[in-house]
Amino acid sequence: MKLLLCGELDAGEMQAWRQALAEAMPEATWLDLAAARAAPGEVVAAVVANPPPGSLQGLGGLRLIQSLWAGVDRLLADPTLPAGVPVARMVDPAMASAMAETALWATLSLQRGFFDYARQQRAGIWRQHAQRRADDVRVAVLGAGQMGAAVAARLRAQGYAVGAWAREARPTSPAGLPLHAGEAALQGLLPLSDIVINLLPLTAATRGLLDARFFSALPAGAAIVNLGRGAHLIEADLLAALGSGRLSHAVLDVFQVEPLPAGHPFWVHPGVTLLPHAAALTDPRSAAEVVAANLRALRDGLPLAHLVDRERGY
Amino acid sequence: MKLLLCGELDAGEMQAWRQALAEAMPEATWLDLAAARAAPGEVVAAVVANPPPGSLQGLGGLRLIQSLWAGVDRLLADPTLPAGVPVARMVDPAMASAMAETALWATLSLQRGFFDYARQQRAGIWRQHAQRRADDVRVAVLGAGQMGAAVAARLRAQGYAVGAWAREARPTSPAGLPLHAGEAALQGLLPLSDIVINLLPLTAATRGLLDARFFSALPAGAAIVNLGRGAHLIEADLLAALGSGRLSHAVLDVFQVEPLPAGHPFWVHPGVTLLPHAAALTDPRSAAEVVAANLRALRDGLPLAHLVDRERGY
Repeated sequence: MKLLLCGELDAGEMQAWRQALAEAMPEATWLDLAAARAAPGEVVAAVVANPPPGSLQGLGGLRLIQSLWAGVDRLLADPTLPAGVPVARMVDPAMASAMAETALWATLSLQRGFFDYARQQRAGIWRQHAQRRADDVRVAVLGAGQMGAAVAARLRAQGYAVGAWAREARPTSPAGLPLHAGEAALQGLLPLSDIVINLLPLTAATRGLLDARFFSALPAGAAIVNLGRGAHLIEADLLAALGSGRLSHAVLDVFQVEPLPAGHPFWVHPGVTLLPHAAALTDPRSAAEVVAANLRALRDGLPLAHLVDRERGY
Repeated sequence: MKLLLCGELDAGEMQAWRQALAEAMPEATWLDLAAARAAPGEVVAAVVANPPPGSLQGLGGLRLIQSLWAGVDRLLADPTLPAGVPVARMVDPAMASAMAETALWATLSLQRGFFDYARQQRAGIWRQHAQRRADDVRVAVLGAGQMGAAVAARLRAQGYAVGAWAREARPTSPAGLPLHAGEAALQGLLPLSDIVINLLPLTAATRGLLDARFFSALPAGAAIVNLGRGAHLIEADLLAALGSGRLSHAVLDVFQVEPLPAGHPFWVHPGVTLLPHAAALTDPRSAAEVVAANLRALRDGLPLAHLVDRERGY
């Protein structure tokens, strides 16, 4: 079984993936892009991490494109992506757990004022703030896929008042919570949310969702945690909402341009805590097993898992 | 039933406590220190928050001293504290839950590098770090009382590898974990601990426990979270251990002198995250119910709860 491994990975990351994949699938032969192009008909699947546009053109034997990342918006934006070849996303429980940790850290920090205490330390100020209980804090989780469900469940277990929202109704609700679905439900949920955590996929319907209109529906002093995609957020609207006090704080993992450019106002804004797109890194140890299971299903003619609907975008 | 309420509380805090206690015990009459001294034989219990030394002298009718705070080391250090009057600590589940939140926030921040990312933001650096899983992180919780047990249980539920330690063996172990007890067990546990969280009571036996010898028993790069008392920690030894790289980070809520004096090196140390003794504030809403239950037990001649062993110090 000849497989292509390619994408935006530095040498150390590529080495970690090669090793993890070789351990998970000792029977496979892994090719790089040059080797795959030398034998275009023999490569049955491509395992990719945001490959440069055009990378997969001409690989006539391709029967699966398996992404190492959960978000496939950049992959699907490549107009040369071979039509008719199924695309699978990474759906890894270890990654969902990492995302839940980041969401919990952000929520605890906002609930208990730990970002404020960090600012106070830098200013040499000793002052206690009122202590909120978890059940006093209402958190809206946007997105009810694997990530959204893991985050909602983790926060609910800590006692937060969690509301889950998705664009469309689903047969099963995340974390046993009633799912608020659709635009009208969102407008009902936002005024009752102290913290909004975005975990939506990036699609034409969700691009720019976090804008001035969205922020104006929240209670004054609410906080935003963007763990989805940079393009979900209108950055100028966020700065205006932080400036007016409509929002008290934003925790941002993703940005319109990454790495966040030097001189961008987010770097030094006292109301912004930023992460370098590190909320949930794919862990080669567990993700290689997920990839191997799907590749074996392909080999054995079994149903493939985690397939993307290219029209819907996720 | 005439009761004294006094201590180190500002006007707003005193008002919150008066209101919460009046709601929890509408049948009681609450006196301040001047009124209590005018009728010293009639005050049956004193509800106190670190009262100035000597405050309770001469109150001949006193049958209970109930602390609003969990730590009673300062109260017991008053040589004029009436002998033979039982002293009770605050043991409030809401306070233990707040402590567990703070411990979890510190542990998540250390596990996932969020303190490092905050430093990077201030320096304008975009760099991802390797992502550790919770079960890769070994946490030692020192103290197996209400606080230690709540913290150990919360961390264990998140998947951390938790070791619980106390100076003396106990009939029940915290959070279903085997309890490491005694000095030899501590020396065995420390080399296997990436994070140490201190929740011990301050006694003659625990004063200065967190010193150079303690730090040298930890693996290189370990972290300390002090949520106990400032006097548990030898501050100069901590600075030396951070300077040498023996320790990577310290999260400190308590200090030898509080408020932490201006110019203290902790304020600006990149390896120190400090809180203004705010890890777990007593919440008047729930604590007033705990106080009222003990005062009613006193009135009705029932056993008193949460009594302190003055010899042991907690």
